[in-house]
Amino acid sequence: MKRKAVVLLLGSEEGAGFQPLLGRPLSAYALEAACGIDPEAVLVLAGAGPAVRDGWESLIKGFETKTPVFLFAGEGRKGGRRAGVFPALVTARAVLEKYPDRDILAVPAGLPLLRSQTLKALLRVHASKGCALTFLSGGGEAGLTGILALRSADVFPLLRGISPARGAAGFGVLALRLTKAGKRVGFYECPDPEDVVPVENGEDFGRAAGLLRGRKNRALARKGVFFLDPASAWVDWAAAIGPRTVVYPSVVIEGPSRVGADSRIYPHVHIMNSQLGARVKVLSSTVMEDTVLEDDVQVGPFSRFRPKTRVCSGAKVGNFVEMKNTVFGPRSKAQHLSYLGDSQVEEDVNVGAGTITCNYDGVAKNRTHIGAGAFIGSGTELVAPVKVGRGAYVAAGSTITKDVAAGALAIARACQVEKPGWVLERVRELKKKNKG
Amino acid sequence: MKRKAVVLLLGSEEGAGFQPLLGRPLSAYALEAACGIDPEAVLVLAGAGPAVRDGWESLIKGFETKTPVFLFAGEGRKGGRRAGVFPALVTARAVLEKYPDRDILAVPAGLPLLRSQTLKALLRVHASKGCALTFLSGGGEAGLTGILALRSADVFPLLRGISPARGAAGFGVLALRLTKAGKRVGFYECPDPEDVVPVENGEDFGRAAGLLRGRKNRALARKGVFFLDPASAWVDWAAAIGPRTVVYPSVVIEGPSRVGADSRIYPHVHIMNSQLGARVKVLSSTVMEDTVLEDDVQVGPFSRFRPKTRVCSGAKVGNFVEMKNTVFGPRSKAQHLSYLGDSQVEEDVNVGAGTITCNYDGVAKNRTHIGAGAFIGSGTELVAPVKVGRGAYVAAGSTITKDVAAGALAIARACQVEKPGWVLERVRELKKKNKG
Amino acid sequence: MKRKAVVLLLGSEEGAGFQPLLGRPLSAYALEAACGIDPEAVLVLAGAGPAVRDGWESLIKGFETKTPVFLFAGEGRKGGRRAGVFPALVTARAVLEKYPDRDILAVPAGLPLLRSQTLKALLRVHASKGCALTFLSGGGEAGLTGILALRSADVFPLLRGISPARGAAGFGVLALRLTKAGKRVGFYECPDPEDVVPVENGEDFGRAAGLLRGRKNRALARKGVFFLDPASAWVDWAAAIGPRTVVYPSVVIEGPSRVGADSRIYPHVHIMNSQLGARVKVLSSTVMEDTVLEDDVQVGPFSRFRPKTRVCSGAKVGNFVEMKNTVFGPRSKAQHLSYLGDSQVEEDVNVGAGTITCNYDGVAKNRTHIGAGAFIGSGTELVAPVKVGRGAYVAAGSTITKDVAAGALAIARACQVEKPGWVLERVRELKKKNKG
Repeated sequence: MKRKAVVLLLGSEEGAGFQPLLGRPLSAYALEAACGIDPEAVLVLAGAGPAVRDGWESLIKGFETKTPVFLFAGEGRKGGRRAGVFPALVTARAVLEKYPDRDILAVPAGLPLLRSQTLKALLRVHASKGCALTFLSGGGEAGLTGILALRSADVFPLLRGISPARGAAGFGVLALRLTKAGKRVGFYECPDPEDVVPVENGEDFGRAAGLLRGRKNRALARKGVFFLDPASAWVDWAAAIGPRTVVYPSVVIEGPSRVGADSRIYPHVHIMNSQLGARVKVLSSTVMEDTVLEDDVQVGPFSRFRPKTRVCSGAKVGNFVEMKNTVFGPRSKAQHLSYLGDSQVEEDVNVGAGTITCNYDGVAKNRTHIGAGAFIGSGTELVAPVKVGRGAYVAAGSTITKDVAAGALAIARACQVEKPGWVLERVRELKKKNKG
Repeated sequence: MKRKAVVLLLGSEEGAGFQPLLGRPLSAYALEAACGIDPEAVLVLAGAGPAVRDGWESLIKGFETKTPVFLFAGEGRKGGRRAGVFPALVTARAVLEKYPDRDILAVPAGLPLLRSQTLKALLRVHASKGCALTFLSGGGEAGLTGILALRSADVFPLLRGISPARGAAGFGVLALRLTKAGKRVGFYECPDPEDVVPVENGEDFGRAAGLLRGRKNRALARKGVFFLDPASAWVDWAAAIGPRTVVYPSVVIEGPSRVGADSRIYPHVHIMNSQLGARVKVLSSTVMEDTVLEDDVQVGPFSRFRPKTRVCSGAKVGNFVEMKNTVFGPRSKAQHLSYLGDSQVEEDVNVGAGTITCNYDGVAKNRTHIGAGAFIGSGTELVAPVKVGRGAYVAAGSTITKDVAAGALAIARACQVEKPGWVLERVRELKKKNKG
Repeated sequence: MKRKAVVLLLGSEEGAGFQPLLGRPLSAYALEAACGIDPEAVLVLAGAGPAVRDGWESLIKGFETKTPVFLFAGEGRKGGRRAGVFPALVTARAVLEKYPDRDILAVPAGLPLLRSQTLKALLRVHASKGCALTFLSGGGEAGLTGILALRSADVFPLLRGISPARGAAGFGVLALRLTKAGKRVGFYECPDPEDVVPVENGEDFGRAAGLLRGRKNRALARKGVFFLDPASAWVDWAAAIGPRTVVYPSVVIEGPSRVGADSRIYPHVHIMNSQLGARVKVLSSTVMEDTVLEDDVQVGPFSRFRPKTRVCSGAKVGNFVEMKNTVFGPRSKAQHLSYLGDSQVEEDVNVGAGTITCNYDGVAKNRTHIGAGAFIGSGTELVAPVKVGRGAYVAAGSTITKDVAAGALAIARACQVEKPGWVLERVRELKKKNKG
């Protein structure tokens, strides 16, 4: 019968453990690897500081797993990643003794590339060799990784009296005691050194970010996403992309965004926390945040969607168009140089170039409503609050301050006047001036 | 006398063989390598499915080479890249026997990094060692590559009776028969393992795309193109760039685009199927498709050119300007926030900020014509169809619905009215309202 | 007592030595490495051509160092990097003999990855082994690097009579003579081969650019800059970024730009020669040149700043907004689709969407002044020269040609007219037309 293990996850003393790595707090990766071995529990030893404890609390709260995860504060792991493991073990002993006769796996949280399979392999070797204590070694220059497996019944009685202040050297004393007591101490070489790349400074961070990005993009590629250049696409850990979707170079997709199947994301696009349907085209250099693009929508290039925007099925939004807090109806079009804010646009509307909803009067934000099938001529200002009725037509260059009835033409512009020969006269005047 | 070889190109059963890799169908690379050895013919064995056959037909049609390329359908290569070579050989035998006493080179089409020099080297070794059958091995874990050379006179008589269903094992039987018959079977280690990187899934694809991109950019660099960051520039296989042209990071150039000499392509630019002259500056974040930029043109940042646009010599187009189906004359300028669609703009025209051609009236697209030397004031709508005469002047903020005569001033705006103290009154009213 | 060394920096004959690499002339890197060992002097041997000499003159003029740097022209280094070192030494002898009894370090300028520590190590070995001549070897295929240390007293007397035309072979003769004279000739293997990557063609250039970029970004990361993707951020050699600032993927920062602490630079941003304060947010796809953004400013996405622009503390500039030669006051906002050129905008101003300063009348550029607290309605043209008074209000859709008094409302637009049922009539007419 397989014994169930308990994981002791060792948080670092500094706040760096919560910096985002591919959009996810650094420490969440090791927590995921820990939960992935299906342990009896994960015990997180946060440092003593309240900021770090708060960080862990919020991380654990937002983390989905079947594994019970408990947080306890205590003397953290001062003195660096490896040096801190022994003192942490001493600190955690009281808590760990509630799980007698188990395999305990100690895992520093600052190893974001760690995978469950590596922990499982360590446990297998630990059990099959009948060791009391097994260190995971990182090979080559990395040496010991700070990860270890131990039999609580064998190890805890022998911990007594070894001062945590000895740091990593404490393990030396412990190993000696174990050997004297006829127990085995083993080493297991990590099969893939990438797993134990530590992240302790900005430089490590960049390297780990690159490795995690590669993993994410390869996983998506295996599921049928087509990257023109996987090396320059940046896809958040939490983002999902459907099969047969094409991702061009230099695309950035942040947050738990969703992109449907058979879509195309062109170069230099930046997507944040947005939901895109199937067969969506996002042309180059488009930026969106908290936005929904339904199926068969085409946007960009140079479109900008601010939060609470929904572009409905079959609609088209073009260059230099901004939308904010707007529902843009099915098959409607706004192709050029426009700003639609706080608006409700129904289906089959044509919004001409240079259309601006004047949603702010210096005091409050007001809403604009455009009925189905309406045609808004170019260069139009819609001074909100205002409604344009279904099928109405607004002439180009109008400033609309009153509601327009359904099917009506609204026009608000001056007549065109011509002054023949004016340019010649003006040139003459300018010449005179220069002579005078 | 050197014997001329015949290449048997083995297409895969799936459509993946036509996915674009650096803008070119995957299988075209192996076809190019095959033609590059100047063979007597290339015989393409497409799979049995009509979609794959159609794919090959169109690929071969668009492929420029002096080598005769023939397509024949048959039992394709089920069972994966390597396993499928033997059955394919059996299938192709009837066709290949029309070329008696030749060296036959079997080449799987799914090897986009293959180079002619490798095939030539294989043939040389095959001939110099007097082998009947020579396998190209990929070294290390890759093992056999699926590429082989054979003497038809030696091999075909001994193929008889070996079932294609044996897959790769068929070669074992064949090799045994050849050896028994006193013939030699050889192995040639591929000098550069990169050549035989197979591409069978999305992950392979990304890797191969990266390698091909590196080759393309290095080839351009050798011809004098200056890449600030070759690792992030993505240049289509079919694109050409002139000497001394500087390419900034994160530039994407697609299709058979041409960029002349001494030009500068700034960061985050996306060029599709366009022709750029010499001394052209494309400032950052500019997007163009099916567009011609003549010599000494400057565009961007944030310009967007849609199909059928020509920007003539010395012209300048600036930020947030869109052009579509437009000829923009020599030395003319449109620097800010404008949309010119279906337009003919002559030379030396100044198009002010916020100029919009209202080319669509809800029913049809109409044309705008602006004569040489005209000045279009800012915030102007030109309601097409409309003509502005040579040297005419349109006042800022006008909506132009009628033609403007040459040299005339056209103006269409309301008089400015001032309400002194209005803001104070309004504030008072708002305060009252809030109290009331 | 440590002897002070003299560096002979060997410029190449071609202009490629001044091509920018990470924004800095290629040869400046080796010059910096040379000055970094704190030598008595650096003697630059430029080629005979005036263009190359001019290039060096300007490079040295702009180079900050305590080390005396002297330029002298002479027979340059024809025949390639390594071959040219011996002839250059012969050429330079007359000048070098002014520094008797010194260690001379010969350094080809075309080694941009060279670091001072490598030169120091070479000198240490040279001295400790008591050599007359020590070559720095680059290991493996690179062989000799062209870098060497020599004792002038030992070497110069033996140079006599060896023809510079012998190229690199001249060193063979020299070494033989030294050995015969009882002097030692040594070799020192360069500890990091990256240091001696030569840059002689476009391909080398790209590779060196990548390595230097990695160095720059790692150095910034060590100082607390947070790169989401260090592999795609391009930061000029001369640029500085403050701690805790986050740099997103595909950012390009050129020239001696400064970014303060706690700022965020989003993806696809291009910054040229600009100064950014602390807590600045530059949203995606923003372009700026010669611009100052004070503390707590937010700009972008899709903002474009042209030279001589200052955005004051707390101001916000949004999408599709261009500024040129403009001071934009504290806490003022211009969030959408606007062009402000040659403008002075005071504090707390709200510039509505689609506001355009008409700063060019076809003849001259004119200025716009907007007083504190003013509100400019959307779709407004401000025809310069023009002043809007403090706290004034300009109604949406107005073309403002005259100054507006403080606190006044200015309005310049036509009344809105409605033609009920017009759309239906129009459809009928169109139908008739089609029938007729």
